[in-house]
Amino acid sequence: MSTIVSVNTRDIRFPTSLQLDGSDAMNPDPDYSAAYLAIRTDAGDGLEGHAFVFTIGRGNEVQVAALEALRGHLIGRDVEELLGDMGAASLRLTHDSQLRWLGPEKGVMHMAIGAVVNALWDLRAKRAGRPLWQHLAGLSPEELVSLVDFRYLTDAITPSEALGILRAAEPGRAERTARLLEVGYPAYTTTPGWLGYSDEKLERLCREAVADGFPQIKLKVGASLEDDIRRLGIARRAVGPDFPVAIDANQRWDVADAIEWVNALAEFAPAWIEEPTSPDDVLGHAAIARGIEPVRVATGEHVQNRIVFKQLLQAGGMDVMQIDATRVGGVNENIANLLLAAKFGVLVCPHAGGVGLCEAVQHLSMFDYVAVSGTMDGRMIEYVDHLHEHFVTPTIVARGRYLTPTAPGAGTEMLADSIDAYTWRGAHAEAPA
Amino acid sequence: MSTIVSVNTRDIRFPTSLQLDGSDAMNPDPDYSAAYLAIRTDAGDGLEGHAFVFTIGRGNEVQVAALEALRGHLIGRDVEELLGDMGAASLRLTHDSQLRWLGPEKGVMHMAIGAVVNALWDLRAKRAGRPLWQHLAGLSPEELVSLVDFRYLTDAITPSEALGILRAAEPGRAERTARLLEVGYPAYTTTPGWLGYSDEKLERLCREAVADGFPQIKLKVGASLEDDIRRLGIARRAVGPDFPVAIDANQRWDVADAIEWVNALAEFAPAWIEEPTSPDDVLGHAAIARGIEPVRVATGEHVQNRIVFKQLLQAGGMDVMQIDATRVGGVNENIANLLLAAKFGVLVCPHAGGVGLCEAVQHLSMFDYVAVSGTMDGRMIEYVDHLHEHFVTPTIVARGRYLTPTAPGAGTEMLADSIDAYTWRGAHAEAPA
Repeated sequence: MSTIVSVNTRDIRFPTSLQLDGSDAMNPDPDYSAAYLAIRTDAGDGLEGHAFVFTIGRGNEVQVAALEALRGHLIGRDVEELLGDMGAASLRLTHDSQLRWLGPEKGVMHMAIGAVVNALWDLRAKRAGRPLWQHLAGLSPEELVSLVDFRYLTDAITPSEALGILRAAEPGRAERTARLLEVGYPAYTTTPGWLGYSDEKLERLCREAVADGFPQIKLKVGASLEDDIRRLGIARRAVGPDFPVAIDANQRWDVADAIEWVNALAEFAPAWIEEPTSPDDVLGHAAIARGIEPVRVATGEHVQNRIVFKQLLQAGGMDVMQIDATRVGGVNENIANLLLAAKFGVLVCPHAGGVGLCEAVQHLSMFDYVAVSGTMDGRMIEYVDHLHEHFVTPTIVARGRYLTPTAPGAGTEMLADSIDAYTWRGAHAEAPA
Repeated sequence: MSTIVSVNTRDIRFPTSLQLDGSDAMNPDPDYSAAYLAIRTDAGDGLEGHAFVFTIGRGNEVQVAALEALRGHLIGRDVEELLGDMGAASLRLTHDSQLRWLGPEKGVMHMAIGAVVNALWDLRAKRAGRPLWQHLAGLSPEELVSLVDFRYLTDAITPSEALGILRAAEPGRAERTARLLEVGYPAYTTTPGWLGYSDEKLERLCREAVADGFPQIKLKVGASLEDDIRRLGIARRAVGPDFPVAIDANQRWDVADAIEWVNALAEFAPAWIEEPTSPDDVLGHAAIARGIEPVRVATGEHVQNRIVFKQLLQAGGMDVMQIDATRVGGVNENIANLLLAAKFGVLVCPHAGGVGLCEAVQHLSMFDYVAVSGTMDGRMIEYVDHLHEHFVTPTIVARGRYLTPTAPGAGTEMLADSIDAYTWRGAHAEAPA
């Protein structure tokens, strides 16, 4: 038997706003940051659970405070008991009756719970000697169903329906695991499309993306229609008429604006419009989806929990589900999201980029391929070539595909030197004038 | 010209869990708490802006950290400029591009923004020498519209529609102000109905509520159907067949459970069912509303922002809007909510209780009566006789009505002695075993 003996948190910030990497219509000057967590035990095996919440600068200290608020749920706990029933461990966190008031299941407190859940999964996968995707894909359908909190979901998916989906995918697991290890998982790149880049840089990066073998690129839109038309024209000429070009408005529009703006860009045949409006607006997404057909609607990086994903699917407001590794309540709630997507037959194309989001979320898509949806068709994980060098097992993308990770763990551990070097000391992230 | 010179925050907690006051199906042991904020200026007039976020214990320190994160938006600011354009002041907070990532517009960070906005309104009303309700009700329709962020609302209500609603209510303002000062505003009481109370205490408190002149009582339900039937029977016998008895499930059910459970309680003719399911589940609320007619659905105390209220109205999922003074982005966003309710023609019956929620939210209902809906018919504010003694201008309820406050300010200032006595020093609010 072993026990959790320490929970260390750090406020880590990269001064990315200095380069305008990551700039879009709603986020002009992000400082990519991580509210970071490391869980240590007295097992004597040297294994630790690491995870984080991705933020974009100011307020990262609030996210760290939320991680600290969960310390009492960890210190002194029996590790084998916690890791042995991750469904119960997750419920104990989300159903803390006092902390629940601060959400419920949304915002700073819910993301902190997600990081704790993810850190426990990192530790469990390391103990199992497997990358997280493979560890999850080795669990029985019954074990996987036990990880999901079906509260508020049963009008869309029941435990027995989830079991049916997982059982149907059981036969081909070994073949798909082998194939995944051989070919990796498709990636698309957002690198060319940040709003802060010049037209010349945009064009060059578009050509490079095609040359690098990516099957899709994505451009930020929504600040100026005139600019969007010019930039999409540049991109379209650079990549050719048939190459998929997605666009991303980062919640910029109201419903009518979204419909008008996307239709004004229809000549460029966008692969999808991402976050056309508020992530909270289920009915708005549905109205937009109806108004811009055949352009698909993608959303999810800011969707707070499985309950909103459920409704986006019920209302027909989302054609592409973009799960995020650190927005919801961790691996467990993302398994719920993957099961919802499978039930409703929509594509899952995760949000990534930021700090460590590629490293974390690839495990969920790969698990989905092996054990849930059973397919990679039309699916891809966002990729931004940025800040990977700070991770112990950095994401590797080659020829437009994520190389399947084989190192034990969830991919969420940062290098000790990077943690120390970028621990925030108040040098940036002042409130704007 | 004056400047904000200090922003003081406090973590205030009352050990209410020792008495089981406030116990319900989802919140068995709340420690009513306030993440508290005081804004001071160098104006030399002795006036300060006070406000808070209500929480129920653990995590109150996270809420305080979120208040601290907004310090940079306040210190050194020109007070007259800030208070002179509260629409702009509110937008600057909600649209801080880095802090926005932590919501957007939901959870801990959004509630902190709400408290800052409310503290600024407290200061502005004190400077104007008016109670907040009267100060707001004295603004022109144009000024009121300028306070609202219509982003994500325009598919349901436009600025010009809002202006029309406010202009239509302009003629009778003086008469309604006089009437309000004379008769106060209807209250209903939740005091009898906490789950932790014995049957004897329930019956006694029900009889007392009727004798005290309240027009409605409310009982918590959802933990056990058998108990609910017994307790509703006791209440119904105590108050008589025609007295309104609302019930509150505090988010306990999934959609099908809610419909079945409420229909099983139909013989007691509940005045409304409150929070039948997740506050995030717009479509679930709409399905429940259809499934339990003619019982009305009430919700709102955990509705995160105007965007979710908008959808609850669009989908027909809410017959009674229960705004909360400290859940959303403050007075400004609650004005948006009141305008939405007026547009869709639903009742507004605010959530209150906790710490200081009665003191704060009464101003919004009274403003609504004078300047928005123009009516008190069928409307009432929740009331719990608890912790009022800690406020400088405590709510007074007599003969089932809130006495209209006349002291300058928003009612949100606590007594200095109470602040000191209940500042948290770690004595309670440990994580559960």
